[in-house]
Amino acid sequence: MATNRLESFSDGVIAVAITLLVLGIHIPTPPQHLGHELGQQWPQYAAYVVSFVTIGIIWINHHAMIARLDRADHSILILNLLLLLTIGILPFATGVMAAYLREPDGQSLAAGVYSGSFLLMSVAFATLNRHILLARAHMMSAELSLDERRRILARSITGLPPYLAATLLAAVSAYATLGICAAMAIFYALPIASGQPRRA
Amino acid sequence: MATNRLESFSDGVIAVAITLLVLGIHIPTPPQHLGHELGQQWPQYAAYVVSFVTIGIIWINHHAMIARLDRADHSILILNLLLLLTIGILPFATGVMAAYLREPDGQSLAAGVYSGSFLLMSVAFATLNRHILLARAHMMSAELSLDERRRILARSITGLPPYLAATLLAAVSAYATLGICAAMAIFYALPIASGQPRRA
Amino acid sequence: MATNRLESFSDGVIAVAITLLVLGIHIPTPPQHLGHELGQQWPQYAAYVVSFVTIGIIWINHHAMIARLDRADHSILILNLLLLLTIGILPFATGVMAAYLREPDGQSLAAGVYSGSFLLMSVAFATLNRHILLARAHMMSAELSLDERRRILARSITGLPPYLAATLLAAVSAYATLGICAAMAIFYALPIASGQPRRA
Amino acid sequence: MATNRLESFSDGVIAVAITLLVLGIHIPTPPQHLGHELGQQWPQYAAYVVSFVTIGIIWINHHAMIARLDRADHSILILNLLLLLTIGILPFATGVMAAYLREPDGQSLAAGVYSGSFLLMSVAFATLNRHILLARAHMMSAELSLDERRRILARSITGLPPYLAATLLAAVSAYATLGICAAMAIFYALPIASGQPRRA
Repeated sequence: MATNRLESFSDGVIAVAITLLVLGIHIPTPPQHLGHELGQQWPQYAAYVVSFVTIGIIWINHHAMIARLDRADHSILILNLLLLLTIGILPFATGVMAAYLREPDGQSLAAGVYSGSFLLMSVAFATLNRHILLARAHMMSAELSLDERRRILARSITGLPPYLAATLLAAVSAYATLGICAAMAIFYALPIASGQPRRA
Repeated sequence: MATNRLESFSDGVIAVAITLLVLGIHIPTPPQHLGHELGQQWPQYAAYVVSFVTIGIIWINHHAMIARLDRADHSILILNLLLLLTIGILPFATGVMAAYLREPDGQSLAAGVYSGSFLLMSVAFATLNRHILLARAHMMSAELSLDERRRILARSITGLPPYLAATLLAAVSAYATLGICAAMAIFYALPIASGQPRRA
Repeated sequence: MATNRLESFSDGVIAVAITLLVLGIHIPTPPQHLGHELGQQWPQYAAYVVSFVTIGIIWINHHAMIARLDRADHSILILNLLLLLTIGILPFATGVMAAYLREPDGQSLAAGVYSGSFLLMSVAFATLNRHILLARAHMMSAELSLDERRRILARSITGLPPYLAATLLAAVSAYATLGICAAMAIFYALPIASGQPRRA
Repeated sequence: MATNRLESFSDGVIAVAITLLVLGIHIPTPPQHLGHELGQQWPQYAAYVVSFVTIGIIWINHHAMIARLDRADHSILILNLLLLLTIGILPFATGVMAAYLREPDGQSLAAGVYSGSFLLMSVAFATLNRHILLARAHMMSAELSLDERRRILARSITGLPPYLAATLLAAVSAYATLGICAAMAIFYALPIASGQPRRA
């Protein structure tokens, strides 16, 4: 299978998931006081921005990953489907985080669900990347040395420890979890000057 | 008509349908107890995963089916539209299953609606595939012998009896129905090692 | 502007609109009696199927219309945007029809909104087609005689009187309106055997 | 990175956002009086149309902007992601405007949120365009003189003052804000005759 339709389907799922995030921002209804309501729901804006940028960066990395492929077999399609499944739940996880971030009862669990979903997505991404780089290297468009492939894979894995830490930290402070997730998004988005993405 | 726009439209509909599934997972609202609510709604997660993988596999098979075509005529477009219609209702069927799986009153009907929708989708898929392989063979890109075409079609039809059984079994046990639908998804997704899809 | 991105954007909007229709089918919640609820909401299924097929046929015709173009200018983009705007409201119009079809108070207005939306969409389609065929003929890929172009345009316009009749008839019977809209969808979908679409 | 997948992802996000706008138009439920309800919610229709056309024009301009590029680097991807983020919140901003336009308490804030979102989107657009035209000129497909690039950029910026004025004016009259936003949409959509888009 050529990779172009794999890309277009993945683009579609990611584009829908990223745009559905907005449904998690609640639109107040009269006679609710608009200013008060909009002010109260800042966790929704924070969760929206962090999730949007995170999914956007996953899309950039997904593009780089698939661009290395010449063609795709069934195993790649299925692992890619599992990755999309983990991206697809992010509107739910984002909504849970937004709803419970300020609730003493539930904020820890909500933060755990939130960064746990990012962790799951990162694991799915690294699994697919590992499969491509090690088990399906013969399907790649350019021949890369084992060293180069291992280096790319290592970068794929650097996201796991921070998300794992954020998930564990949720038991202590939901705000710390959100902070780490936000820092991860900024870290990967930042190097505008160099023109080099930090992840693959 | 060239098949590329047919593919891109089908990809779009399938990508939206698969991503809308997440709207069926309920986001609790305070002061509901988050842990209790999330624990209660495990049927929603199960239904989400089974439906996501099933739609994903239909997408893979859809790609293989359309890739055999050189061009498409009106009859193919209409039968494809009917297939998309059956895929489009899956977020509804999945939501019904998730809402009533644990209700003594209604769980049988919900399970019947759920696997009945998969059955309908499989019938629509097999119908389109049959039309392409037998009535529109002259529009295919590669010339396949009648035997080969019959063999592909036979694989298309193997999904019908299990979904029919699951639908009938719904009257007895909704969990058995869900189990069969899950087993179907795993069966088609599994052969990662061989790199060969089992359906077409 | 090349027409491929115009096509891909239009495909996206139409694919999302057609898939959003499913949100108009209500998922009952326990302790509502599932069988009773599902039985009551047959107008939602009817409206879903009619709208899905109608939008699908508009997509087929849209493809044929744009395929005649070599490139697109600003006027075509804007008229296409207005067409997409009328397609975008169909999930709303379908929802109104489904909610009020069986209400003595409101069913006439609902049916009028429903077929009135189809009428609006048909007018937008014919307007764009007319603009392409008459005012932008120099942007078409194949040179067609004025007679041929007028014949294509005439087919574009044949959908208007039935939708106008259905809209006027809404004052008398909402079911008659639904029946005409359903008949239109079947009429355009039917000629599977000939392989010739009836509209352009 | 080639620009085609950047385009296809952006098209997807914009197509989903523009189509989600319809969810902001409320579908009345019996026994509410349909005519009365539909008549009351005209702000929802107005906000829908203005937002739809505005997003559609941003899409046209986005196409023109990306078409000038030969390839894209990480900085372009990230700035494009931020632009998509501002487009993604428009269904929320449109919903707020529609809900509070007629409420003495809240209409000013709602109008400020509405045109403020358009302002934000315009700033994100101009920022990306500036980055491409000045800092990434070597990635453009055609060599343009600095003067030409500055002229294109100037057109990009002409949208900012009106949206800024509309946002400030929200404190005085929400209707004036809506009027300016509507006028902007018409102004950019209008020059059908010349075939020349007014913005870039």
